[in-house]
Amino acid sequence: MFEKAIILLSGGLDSATVLAVAKKQGYDCYAMSINYHQRHSAELAAARKIADFFKVVDFKVVELDLSWLSSSALTNQSIDIPEGPLGGIPVTYVPARNTIMMALALAWAENINCYNIFIGVNAVDYSGYPDCRQEYINSFQAMANLATKTAVEGNEIKIHTPLIDLSKSQIIRKGNKYGVDYSMTISCYQATKEGFACGKCDSCRLRKEGFLSAKVNDPTSYVEQTRKN
Amino acid sequence: MFEKAIILLSGGLDSATVLAVAKKQGYDCYAMSINYHQRHSAELAAARKIADFFKVVDFKVVELDLSWLSSSALTNQSIDIPEGPLGGIPVTYVPARNTIMMALALAWAENINCYNIFIGVNAVDYSGYPDCRQEYINSFQAMANLATKTAVEGNEIKIHTPLIDLSKSQIIRKGNKYGVDYSMTISCYQATKEGFACGKCDSCRLRKEGFLSAKVNDPTSYVEQTRKN
Repeated sequence: MFEKAIILLSGGLDSATVLAVAKKQGYDCYAMSINYHQRHSAELAAARKIADFFKVVDFKVVELDLSWLSSSALTNQSIDIPEGPLGGIPVTYVPARNTIMMALALAWAENINCYNIFIGVNAVDYSGYPDCRQEYINSFQAMANLATKTAVEGNEIKIHTPLIDLSKSQIIRKGNKYGVDYSMTISCYQATKEGFACGKCDSCRLRKEGFLSAKVNDPTSYVEQTRKN
Repeated sequence: MFEKAIILLSGGLDSATVLAVAKKQGYDCYAMSINYHQRHSAELAAARKIADFFKVVDFKVVELDLSWLSSSALTNQSIDIPEGPLGGIPVTYVPARNTIMMALALAWAENINCYNIFIGVNAVDYSGYPDCRQEYINSFQAMANLATKTAVEGNEIKIHTPLIDLSKSQIIRKGNKYGVDYSMTISCYQATKEGFACGKCDSCRLRKEGFLSAKVNDPTSYVEQTRKN
């Protein structure tokens, strides 16, 4: 039997690639998505499709309404998603999001005797989120190894971040090689219910540039293309 | 205006005391309870009563079904709550529970520009949970100060654990002095819907001994007493 790994799967490009990497490394993969009432449900549908595609052992969706986090444009629908490049920590930052998600993954990990958690954070082409940095991940891992029964019993919990030092185009090339079908993934902060991307938000911009620079065909369905057709 | 503090409030003896301490220290108090589908809902009703009693600025209940954590007797109702003293890390341990709760408190803290989180962990009369130790709390605090926009902007997040070095009887004496009405609190792992305590589980045992040793009248309503009356 292979070692188990939990993969935090958002339905986006990065986490789909992470799942492919974990599969390639030979882990028995368990995928977790968190329905935190982000702006659209297309993301969760995408996560389910990707989990099926990679034949995960189990796929868990945790329901956690974070719409009371009024400061973030991802959880507060009355804040507009900014279009064009952003500076500083943008309004799409969700307070403590990766900490909450990794805490939930940690709980599931303990429950199934799993010592590996994969997350698609990325420190290169990212939007300035503090919880995507290597120093934060190291610190979470140290905390996890004090927090848990797993650790007290002598097992080491490892947070894997296979994308952290890659550019978006390197991520796309890697995923492409490992068989990720990026048409299944959704990166847009304001995708339509049907899964069409706006093509204008920071996340769309990084994704578009990534495909261009990777010289990989961009299979994203953009709202504008649809309107043109 | 006073500084803000978030207090994790379970409805038990310890967290009620923590809220009293935070009030005494002059904080504007925000109470948070997590409905993680623990065995009984009496705990949440108690938390609400305590929050009202101490006139918190806001009381938030986060709904987070953790009943899929099958390894813990608190989230899996088919596991019996052990009676009598326990050894090691008992089956009432909920994987990563304090990490999940503090992560949610951290998110709320960021959202309301609050830099203080209070939690009633206790390293003396406790049940062997790894996430009640000082080294774990220190590690969570270090992580929180890397995870967040709050920290990047130069504010320091502090995790307050005013009970960590106190015995149960010292906690009770402190709360008694600060006006905690312990009849409102529920510590029992298997309280009835009406809030009666079993008097037999580890949590009841520690509480009972605490009142005895503190020489404070024990206002707990036990099932047995009720049967006798």
